[in-house]
Amino acid sequence: MAAGATLTTCSSVDKATAARDFGTETEPVHGAHQAGVATPPQTHAVFVALDLLPQQGRGPRETLEAVLRLWSSDIARLAEGRPALADTEPELAHLPARLTVTVGLGPSVFDRVGLAHRRPRSVTEVPGFSTDRLQPRWCGGDLLLQICADDLVTVAHASRVLLKNVRAVTRQRWRQNGFRHAHGAGGSMRNLMGQVDGTATIADAAGFDRLVWDDGSDQPWFAGGTVMVVRRIRAEMDTWDELDRQSKELAVGRRLDSGAPLTGDLETDQPDFAASRNGIPVIPPNSHIALARPRRADEQFLRRPYNFDDAPPAGHITDSGLIFATYQRDPARQFVPVQRRLAQSDALNEWITTVGSATFAILPGFRPGEHLGQALL
Amino acid sequence: MAAGATLTTCSSVDKATAARDFGTETEPVHGAHQAGVATPPQTHAVFVALDLLPQQGRGPRETLEAVLRLWSSDIARLAEGRPALADTEPELAHLPARLTVTVGLGPSVFDRVGLAHRRPRSVTEVPGFSTDRLQPRWCGGDLLLQICADDLVTVAHASRVLLKNVRAVTRQRWRQNGFRHAHGAGGSMRNLMGQVDGTATIADAAGFDRLVWDDGSDQPWFAGGTVMVVRRIRAEMDTWDELDRQSKELAVGRRLDSGAPLTGDLETDQPDFAASRNGIPVIPPNSHIALARPRRADEQFLRRPYNFDDAPPAGHITDSGLIFATYQRDPARQFVPVQRRLAQSDALNEWITTVGSATFAILPGFRPGEHLGQALL
Repeated sequence: MAAGATLTTCSSVDKATAARDFGTETEPVHGAHQAGVATPPQTHAVFVALDLLPQQGRGPRETLEAVLRLWSSDIARLAEGRPALADTEPELAHLPARLTVTVGLGPSVFDRVGLAHRRPRSVTEVPGFSTDRLQPRWCGGDLLLQICADDLVTVAHASRVLLKNVRAVTRQRWRQNGFRHAHGAGGSMRNLMGQVDGTATIADAAGFDRLVWDDGSDQPWFAGGTVMVVRRIRAEMDTWDELDRQSKELAVGRRLDSGAPLTGDLETDQPDFAASRNGIPVIPPNSHIALARPRRADEQFLRRPYNFDDAPPAGHITDSGLIFATYQRDPARQFVPVQRRLAQSDALNEWITTVGSATFAILPGFRPGEHLGQALL
Repeated sequence: MAAGATLTTCSSVDKATAARDFGTETEPVHGAHQAGVATPPQTHAVFVALDLLPQQGRGPRETLEAVLRLWSSDIARLAEGRPALADTEPELAHLPARLTVTVGLGPSVFDRVGLAHRRPRSVTEVPGFSTDRLQPRWCGGDLLLQICADDLVTVAHASRVLLKNVRAVTRQRWRQNGFRHAHGAGGSMRNLMGQVDGTATIADAAGFDRLVWDDGSDQPWFAGGTVMVVRRIRAEMDTWDELDRQSKELAVGRRLDSGAPLTGDLETDQPDFAASRNGIPVIPPNSHIALARPRRADEQFLRRPYNFDDAPPAGHITDSGLIFATYQRDPARQFVPVQRRLAQSDALNEWITTVGSATFAILPGFRPGEHLGQALL
């Protein structure tokens, strides 16, 4: 695999791009919060859910602590472009490309390790919605690894290292591969239905403190953490593609070309939900953006979505959609009311189907010498 | 999916990278050869093999011609950053990111369309090798679509459009997703075993004419085409990772850190297969590069490999390896002798397993107003 027929070596492409190489860029790994939440989204993401396996001679709590210790050390090294301890492919570690690894605990694991009383009340599976078509193979999990970077080779190596080191004590439950536009390609995030996605988000520290980061008032150990709800939303491309453009724009409430609300000209314009023409609302009340609009100040959450496009099952053309990764202090107050409204009457529902759902306590950050979950365990 | 909770819009990342956006870069689509062979490899590739379905009221030859006409038109538009005809997500077409689409015909299709006498002798499945562990689900196919770009959103959109338009007359046989380092990340191509890969390749026009492009001497219609052999090679990472570095380097014949041959200092240094130390060859005779080295001038071919890293089957950690895409005038003279040598005694064999194989006649290029396969049909 490594070499073969020889003529000459072609390195002109490498040279042309050397001036702007971003492979060595890093994201800070230590702090009050884990990286990978407030971090500007990287191009690639892998989400892996794991279950803890019963161990002989060691309790589940000790197993969990061992996993988190090991991961903390390797995450810190990999994020800085250094090989993990006992890294068998150390050369693949040298281009971190803004690697972040984010670790979460599923609601189930608190019981399993005898710490049910330490589970934040906010960390619980979200209730079912009428439009859900959940498949067990995309749901739940004791542990979450979210691995993001601007280079897929980096993501593949980091996931290999982190999963290999815990193979004796965990089993993979599901894995989802996601992507956005390439670093440096330009363009807003678009999902594969063609829509500009993620226009409205949380950008300032005050917003993060108010809406995303837990303040420890329920469980002091959880201060600085957040609650992730990740939904796998399949796009029904075959029927979506049959819809004309105007109907699509009315279903979403935004123009497909610019991403502007139907009442505006620019992607960044605020939608005017009161505007009407001949007595008919310009943005239909059952359009996606009208229903997603917060009714109360806390009906907001951080969205960090990724596209997926997997090999389809036999007889199908496409298996694509959105890995809708969201982060908030309390899904029950922030995520659930919005989703309930959307489930009830979102015009988009005909063309999107939620097939997976999981909730994770994203652990507070860690400092050099500490490990993830230290305040819990 | 398109919008939701609103605070402010974060566009600092977009602005910072605007100066170097490469999304609008294009590769020439028309000419004597199809794009995607001599093109410097893009970051992402999707390889899709399709079978022609029997049609009522239309012969297979007419069906094939209709597919190739449709694809030619859409490929030309998409490669230039314009939406395909009847593109239902036209906004996804605006960042071609060096998109190339390359079309091939499997050996079987010539019989199926009644053109067995027009099949180039070079276009035939390669013989089995002793180390093959082929799975039918990764083998063969009537038609190949190879879609490459530096942005995965572009690849997803192009594959959707091109596959959707032929869904009534084809069935997907297999699909493989591949990747290399991100555009602009820096670094040589490395496979997921950690090896620098693709050091030696064919870079000049004379080499391409001699080794890659068909000259039409067998089948005049095929002049300007080439023969692709694509092999899916699984890396046995679990056992590979147990090997110490020196053993790995002896198996490959190159250093893992620099990619230099064991007799040199730089990746680009020519290996010295005659060098020995204390009577023992420095590069072992059964190392990968020693066996891959051409014994005759025509034992060379263009390699354009991509990594794969898919969700593993239950109980496994990783399903990764190499999509070994090769292009040559005649696999029997160029590819087969090298692979036969490797199958016999390559030290790497213990850690790599070929699970898929397919051969395709990559059609000659086309000019504006023409369509792919015009000289054949």
